[in-house]
Amino acid sequence: MSQTIEFLKPSASVLDNRARIVADLSDLLPPECLVHEQRELVPFETDAFVSYCKVPLAVALPKTTAQVAAVMKYCHRYGIPIVPRGAGTSLSGGAIPQEDAVVIGLSKMSQILELDFFNRVATVQAGVTNLSISDAAGPQGFFYAPDPSSQLACTIGGNIGMNSGGAHCLKYGVTTNNLLGVKMVLVDGTVLELGGKHLDASGYDLLGLVCGSEGQLGIVTEATVRLIAKPEGARPVLFGFDTSEQAGSCVADIIGSGIIPVAIEFMDKPAIEICEAFAKAGYPTDVGALLIVEVEGSEDEMDAMLADIVAIARQHAVKTVRECQSAMEAAAIWKGRKSAFGATGRISDYICMDGTVPLSQLSYVLQKTSEITDHFGLRVANVFHAGDGNMHPLILFNANDPVEAAKAEEAGNQILRLCVDAGGCLTGEHGVGIEKRDLMRHQFSDADLAQQMAVRFAFDDGWLLNPSKVFPLEGRPAS
Amino acid sequence: MSQTIEFLKPSASVLDNRARIVADLSDLLPPECLVHEQRELVPFETDAFVSYCKVPLAVALPKTTAQVAAVMKYCHRYGIPIVPRGAGTSLSGGAIPQEDAVVIGLSKMSQILELDFFNRVATVQAGVTNLSISDAAGPQGFFYAPDPSSQLACTIGGNIGMNSGGAHCLKYGVTTNNLLGVKMVLVDGTVLELGGKHLDASGYDLLGLVCGSEGQLGIVTEATVRLIAKPEGARPVLFGFDTSEQAGSCVADIIGSGIIPVAIEFMDKPAIEICEAFAKAGYPTDVGALLIVEVEGSEDEMDAMLADIVAIARQHAVKTVRECQSAMEAAAIWKGRKSAFGATGRISDYICMDGTVPLSQLSYVLQKTSEITDHFGLRVANVFHAGDGNMHPLILFNANDPVEAAKAEEAGNQILRLCVDAGGCLTGEHGVGIEKRDLMRHQFSDADLAQQMAVRFAFDDGWLLNPSKVFPLEGRPAS
Repeated sequence: MSQTIEFLKPSASVLDNRARIVADLSDLLPPECLVHEQRELVPFETDAFVSYCKVPLAVALPKTTAQVAAVMKYCHRYGIPIVPRGAGTSLSGGAIPQEDAVVIGLSKMSQILELDFFNRVATVQAGVTNLSISDAAGPQGFFYAPDPSSQLACTIGGNIGMNSGGAHCLKYGVTTNNLLGVKMVLVDGTVLELGGKHLDASGYDLLGLVCGSEGQLGIVTEATVRLIAKPEGARPVLFGFDTSEQAGSCVADIIGSGIIPVAIEFMDKPAIEICEAFAKAGYPTDVGALLIVEVEGSEDEMDAMLADIVAIARQHAVKTVRECQSAMEAAAIWKGRKSAFGATGRISDYICMDGTVPLSQLSYVLQKTSEITDHFGLRVANVFHAGDGNMHPLILFNANDPVEAAKAEEAGNQILRLCVDAGGCLTGEHGVGIEKRDLMRHQFSDADLAQQMAVRFAFDDGWLLNPSKVFPLEGRPAS
Repeated sequence: MSQTIEFLKPSASVLDNRARIVADLSDLLPPECLVHEQRELVPFETDAFVSYCKVPLAVALPKTTAQVAAVMKYCHRYGIPIVPRGAGTSLSGGAIPQEDAVVIGLSKMSQILELDFFNRVATVQAGVTNLSISDAAGPQGFFYAPDPSSQLACTIGGNIGMNSGGAHCLKYGVTTNNLLGVKMVLVDGTVLELGGKHLDASGYDLLGLVCGSEGQLGIVTEATVRLIAKPEGARPVLFGFDTSEQAGSCVADIIGSGIIPVAIEFMDKPAIEICEAFAKAGYPTDVGALLIVEVEGSEDEMDAMLADIVAIARQHAVKTVRECQSAMEAAAIWKGRKSAFGATGRISDYICMDGTVPLSQLSYVLQKTSEITDHFGLRVANVFHAGDGNMHPLILFNANDPVEAAKAEEAGNQILRLCVDAGGCLTGEHGVGIEKRDLMRHQFSDADLAQQMAVRFAFDDGWLLNPSKVFPLEGRPAS
């Protein structure tokens, strides 16, 4: 991949004092919580946005909020950049370090502190994986709703940083809609508690602000999240269409009718073929586009909702309707969808875009996306959360061919600009990270960005927290 | 009522230049958009928290975002405080002016700009009343969900300022969950657009931060809100219990079971008697506590949900179960509930608290509330959104008796402290305003408040926007 995104120039004074910094950190942390040997640092050099990598100065893996606070206070005093890290599954490079940074990884803070079914909340440490909350609450009939495809690995802390979504967020909302409180550490080591088990909060909604702030306002060490009662049943149905346009209009009409299925996922022909070859999910391969629509409730409720949805699909000339007959079949359908990125990675390098558009623009943007990738002579596979308008074009390319890599990156930029111009935004759930940092000026006016940066400044006036990310390097306020 | 809450000392230089300021404003606004005669200013001296009043310097009633921006830019240049105002229905004094302030009222910005059923959103000017959005969208089968009791009068701009809730927010969420975008004017006249018709946003969630910021970060002039499809049917059922404790435990068990009715409203015996006498709603008067539980969906769905809910109520020794037989009966039930504050006002002066607690604390807090009001020899009526844990004790007192008024205020303070100590917060939906400003230190640590104030400072470094509100006067940063 072409290295077109610049990192901040590392601080010479930090690099020169590396040995001293490591020694100081080793006073603050037990030996098993500090990584500083070069070969042990390499695994932390990148995340799931593998196009860029930088080996950090050191990695702290604290076990307690107090240890997080001690490391941050130290780094703050000496002007050392800090890069927070959950499981390193960021698709936008949100956890990629820089050479002069101390990475603070939350992987050792992986305890579920409380399951409170009476108040329907769970309180967990930030390094707990997404899926393990549902696993723990499952026996009592509850689950944690946001379900990124990486949910087996990704952490709640990372989910909060990126305001992560997932296939089932159409009904249940994304992370911010399911987050009730956090304990977080500010850059100077101050510990704040925001929100709690109750509705809303007095004063400003700092909790909402922190959710999605990509580790730039502080590091979350504990979170209180909503638990949802499992539905009586859930049933996906597959709809095959000849064209993506038909599928796109069908989605808009389902949503426009007021029905809210728990998920509406879209795959175009390339995505269907890739996923079917990998997961044997039973997808029809003679269609141009596929929708997975899932409904929940009692058998009667599901029957009624599906009847309405099938009627709408028929108005859009649906070619194949396949209702799911068993739990095993349903699991296969979801396995196919959730392995889409991995399955694509088996056959080609790819970059995954995350633009989000109003539903009425879905068909138009799909059409234009094809035109853009055609123009560059590249293939594209579309597999995404259609009910939310949250698109994921996967642009396939050969990473060993620098010319093709540059084309892929430019095609991706054009697609994201297209989403913004269609009334949408650069990211639905993956975050801005380093990937989309330089496109922020296309979405936001100077006044918009200045206001966001002023808020960042109110938390971190030295710009030490995850500093290479989110905001274009030029035009930042002097710290 | 005892005047125990202090206002900021008005600026002598602003007061001395009153004539000049009015003349300057009259250059910026058409004559019908500027109120400056003393007798015409009096209606703006307070809001629904009538305990305090101050006649403002002038009132601007702009018709356009450009006019709002021009007035704010002018006030910013000359250091004149600004108090935003919707319909003046704030229960926490959020719209009470100060003598040296220009009030910016949004009542003339009352146009519905777009109903976009395809994307299920409405875009409206900030002075549009809450109910008029549902009225406009109703013929197409949609509505705007948050429903404060003042919904006939209160504006979307005010709802955004206070992150307003309502009886039906248990299922649909409060304002922040239904707000997709705003156009807003910063204190210096800069116009920002946050969010839009799409899911989520790139960069920081400034939209979430602005919602509930009580007019201190800017003035919202337009809003894009979610429209929800009307359910097939809705049916309230009344449950009468001997004691408040039984009703409180029943609420916690309904929610704990995972069922989410669209509303669970609670009334204790004094509230039942007051509302029944006024609204003839058909409430049973031989019970100690009443729940109104409303479910939505098809007839079959409602039957199934109600059967489960009735079974839970029976476990808590429910005395009366009355299912609603007609739309007229349902309307009467809701009219009774929504007129509770007005009906109380007919028989006594009162102050309404807005503390919110985790559901598991409901019975305990109700019991302690009685003990507190008993201690002061005052009567209390409880009528509130029980499913959310959002309590509204109405403390009855005689406003012409300064000793009793002081007791009522102190009892209210003790009740709010109780809510915080039980793991809750000072306000669920009415806002901090001026009423609860001096209690913020009980909820928040110095570090919490300092961080909130730093964020405020990032929007308004001169503290000109609604300056007497939200933060205790002592300990504010120098501007």
